[in-house]
Amino acid sequence: MGFGEGGCTISTLRPELLSALRLIVITDQGLAAPRAMEAVVEKALLGGAPAIQLREKEKSSGELLEVGQRLRELTGRYGALLFVNDRFDVALAAGADGVHVGPEDISVAALRERVPAGFIIGYSCDDVAEARRAVGAGADYIGCGAVYGTTTKTDAGVAIGLERLNAMATAVAVPVVAIGGITPERAGEVAATRAAGIAVAGAVMTAEDPAEAVGCLMEPFQSRAAEP
Amino acid sequence: MGFGEGGCTISTLRPELLSALRLIVITDQGLAAPRAMEAVVEKALLGGAPAIQLREKEKSSGELLEVGQRLRELTGRYGALLFVNDRFDVALAAGADGVHVGPEDISVAALRERVPAGFIIGYSCDDVAEARRAVGAGADYIGCGAVYGTTTKTDAGVAIGLERLNAMATAVAVPVVAIGGITPERAGEVAATRAAGIAVAGAVMTAEDPAEAVGCLMEPFQSRAAEP
Repeated sequence: MGFGEGGCTISTLRPELLSALRLIVITDQGLAAPRAMEAVVEKALLGGAPAIQLREKEKSSGELLEVGQRLRELTGRYGALLFVNDRFDVALAAGADGVHVGPEDISVAALRERVPAGFIIGYSCDDVAEARRAVGAGADYIGCGAVYGTTTKTDAGVAIGLERLNAMATAVAVPVVAIGGITPERAGEVAATRAAGIAVAGAVMTAEDPAEAVGCLMEPFQSRAAEP
Repeated sequence: MGFGEGGCTISTLRPELLSALRLIVITDQGLAAPRAMEAVVEKALLGGAPAIQLREKEKSSGELLEVGQRLRELTGRYGALLFVNDRFDVALAAGADGVHVGPEDISVAALRERVPAGFIIGYSCDDVAEARRAVGAGADYIGCGAVYGTTTKTDAGVAIGLERLNAMATAVAVPVVAIGGITPERAGEVAATRAAGIAVAGAVMTAEDPAEAVGCLMEPFQSRAAEP
């Protein structure tokens, strides 16, 4: 698709973060049901998922922290990163590696002032100028989408497509993670862009075999990394 | 009513906190409408309200922080304390004086580990053993209620009454703030217990004259403090 040409600005960043950003599995108890979300997460971790993002909008703060603590234990056991959506209080209290925020949440600049050194901040946006401002304020990676239509996040807006994803990944100095409607079948064409990886909720949370889904989603990114 | 007899354990605590806990005005944009909640808060501050608690469940994190920053500016101008309900991330980012949590929120112990020295933690409960555990974990005051029936918080449970409020205020070593259905008319009988003060949403947010409502709500507590 011609997306791979030119210099790669992301190769100078923390390699362990780059590797973890190949696949972020976003939790959703509603999608995982009737299975416990934690059971689906554990299968995803068994399948090699390098990062989990806790995103459960319906839970109270206390419940969210309890789930966060269980996921911290699980991700720790498998050597995966744990991010928490929106809530840096829960992220800090659970000992998570980072927080993921969007335009409606606490700003990256306000977060960066408050979190410990090395704490990872992800920021959702699909606009290059806004992404660069977020990076300037301290964002470690950008979540960009929805690449395709998505059914799991009702406020994700219209699909931006692969060209715009690639333009974003080329234009900002930190890893760009593609999100929105990504399935195992589509992972190959996303990996042909300069996106560092993908974030999915439905493709893993609803999978009959979450470990297998993780393998299929990651394979094109691992093959790409192995290329000379 | 006989509630005033015996030793007073709360008199040894920080006097500025004790004084501020005479009245906590809890925000509620829904109740303040069609007026802007911030305008009602400013009138309450003009009337002498010593503490404001930001509690707006419907707002996104980013909106909540913006409101928190505006209230921080306002409360700072009037020398009042600012608490944030539930969200210590918003409380920290807005530079609030404290956070107020309940059994469904992040635990007092987990909060105390994460907040700076001097940060105030309030905890809602109506059970003496639970209140003592919260104080042991680091709570600076207890919110106790609903003393009367309340219409502004749907999950507040049944009314506990003045006797139980007084028993709680007698049994725990930190100030106890009465909450739930308190009006200017009822403030006198609440001030006859050992409660350090009261917290209200409706009585100020819906008041035609919020400054006057604040005066009426605080008067019995100020008279009590002035007694020899």
